[in-house]
Amino acid sequence: MSPVKLSAKEGVLNFLNKYDCFLFDCDGVLWLGDQLLPKVIETLNFLRSQGKKLIFVTNNSTKSRVQYVEKFKKFGLNVNKEEIFGSSYASCIYLEKFLNFDKSKKVWVFGESGIEQELKEIGIESIGGTDPALNVEFSNDNHFLKPDPTVGAVIVGLTTHINYLKMAATLQYLLNLEIPFIATNIDSTYPSNGMILPGAGSIIQSVATCSHRTPIACGKPNQNMLDVIVAAHGINRERTCMVGDRLNTDMIFGLDGGLGTLLVLTGIESEENVFKQEKDKQPLYYADKLGDIYEFLNEA
Amino acid sequence: MSPVKLSAKEGVLNFLNKYDCFLFDCDGVLWLGDQLLPKVIETLNFLRSQGKKLIFVTNNSTKSRVQYVEKFKKFGLNVNKEEIFGSSYASCIYLEKFLNFDKSKKVWVFGESGIEQELKEIGIESIGGTDPALNVEFSNDNHFLKPDPTVGAVIVGLTTHINYLKMAATLQYLLNLEIPFIATNIDSTYPSNGMILPGAGSIIQSVATCSHRTPIACGKPNQNMLDVIVAAHGINRERTCMVGDRLNTDMIFGLDGGLGTLLVLTGIESEENVFKQEKDKQPLYYADKLGDIYEFLNEA
Repeated sequence: MSPVKLSAKEGVLNFLNKYDCFLFDCDGVLWLGDQLLPKVIETLNFLRSQGKKLIFVTNNSTKSRVQYVEKFKKFGLNVNKEEIFGSSYASCIYLEKFLNFDKSKKVWVFGESGIEQELKEIGIESIGGTDPALNVEFSNDNHFLKPDPTVGAVIVGLTTHINYLKMAATLQYLLNLEIPFIATNIDSTYPSNGMILPGAGSIIQSVATCSHRTPIACGKPNQNMLDVIVAAHGINRERTCMVGDRLNTDMIFGLDGGLGTLLVLTGIESEENVFKQEKDKQPLYYADKLGDIYEFLNEA
Repeated sequence: MSPVKLSAKEGVLNFLNKYDCFLFDCDGVLWLGDQLLPKVIETLNFLRSQGKKLIFVTNNSTKSRVQYVEKFKKFGLNVNKEEIFGSSYASCIYLEKFLNFDKSKKVWVFGESGIEQELKEIGIESIGGTDPALNVEFSNDNHFLKPDPTVGAVIVGLTTHINYLKMAATLQYLLNLEIPFIATNIDSTYPSNGMILPGAGSIIQSVATCSHRTPIACGKPNQNMLDVIVAAHGINRERTCMVGDRLNTDMIFGLDGGLGTLLVLTGIESEENVFKQEKDKQPLYYADKLGDIYEFLNEA
């Protein structure tokens, strides 16, 4: 079946009837940089009014869900913490529920406060992370290089505060193969201020290289993220649709997970790209923008 | 042919007759950490007295050859700059001779002063590197993120002063596929103070990941290093022997390059390891230590 474009009221109604739950990628779908996209508020309000479940999924690990709620608020979007799934939260839940982490142990964090805060919320102590004692000139007798025996896992995510001491200290933990190595997400880059900047994957690859280990990745398109969401919300995959702006992450994430898929063209993809994809990697639906759902339903 | 152990005077004489030039790995061969190994000075003096050419090869890119001469001096070893081949020097010569670098252009350095000094010696200007203006908190409007149009190459090596600004600025150059991407060496780790620390390869992999590029590697066991040495010294490969303490770097470097090979057991390998290797990866010769050359020649 060829991708169906949402281009009139009837098509939108058919689409909505198929799903009870929608997972949304955020940047490129709800907003673009610091600009809210048209009719997003109206569309989300309409979906809520119809009893649809909404979940917002982001690979950004630098913010916790609480910090994300604030970000949504700035766009005039009211969401609650439970509706948000960031990759740091997904990593913590994966550790807790899928790896049955012993909570008397600590987690070594190589990343930002998003990871630390989510760990704290589920009652796990962390070390490393944003500790200012780590922001020092490297010397090979620094006490952080002596692994703390109470550490039982390592979580690595994007940080713009990478330094050699953090890399070397993380390596000392990863040399112990009994300590799980979790990556919030493995995006190699992200766009910022019209530039391409190194993503979480670049930070993670530095310590993956020296430890000769491959991390368990918890962000899109890795299915660990979806497994965590399904477990947390008890959703029915067949009645759930992934909405995103990227074919190779969001749409693959949905397709691999057995979800419906809606690509919106407000991000990096064009209509042409949709049909250039191999058949089995094409989304089920696509639309010029998310707000079309509201606009077509309200047209004369 | 099985590896031959140097274990008596006659064997040593046969070995020495086959070669006019010896390439030495340093740590584990000449010294171990800060300890000179036995009879190294006597062996090197003897080889010189026989008119043999000696070249010292190291993957350590943080020091220039001039800085290495000082290091040798501390061990009581007198060598001159021309006898030393560090991976930063090899990278600079590779750029100059093999890539015919336009010297009116600059090199962006992500690494230590060893690279900067070697570039300066061959008359190439560098930027980045140890510039203290790079040791600042990251912000996406930092002027280093605007690529300098006069930069014509990037050299990356080990640095314990990695930060996100240096990673991000290096990426901006690597996004231009016309700018060659040179790595001094790709060792994933190195030993220090009884620990394993992240090596040049871990630094390089961070920017290789976000740029989706593979560097030209100039250190052992990569043959670019040997090609540079052969070009600089005009040596005859068949009459040259690589002496080292590691099967998977030094010995592979020599074997791949068509050199003779002598493994010494003063570093990380054991006699057992020699014979565990596949036949075509075994060294031609091995010895308990380099100083055995002197000792066997002087035995009664």
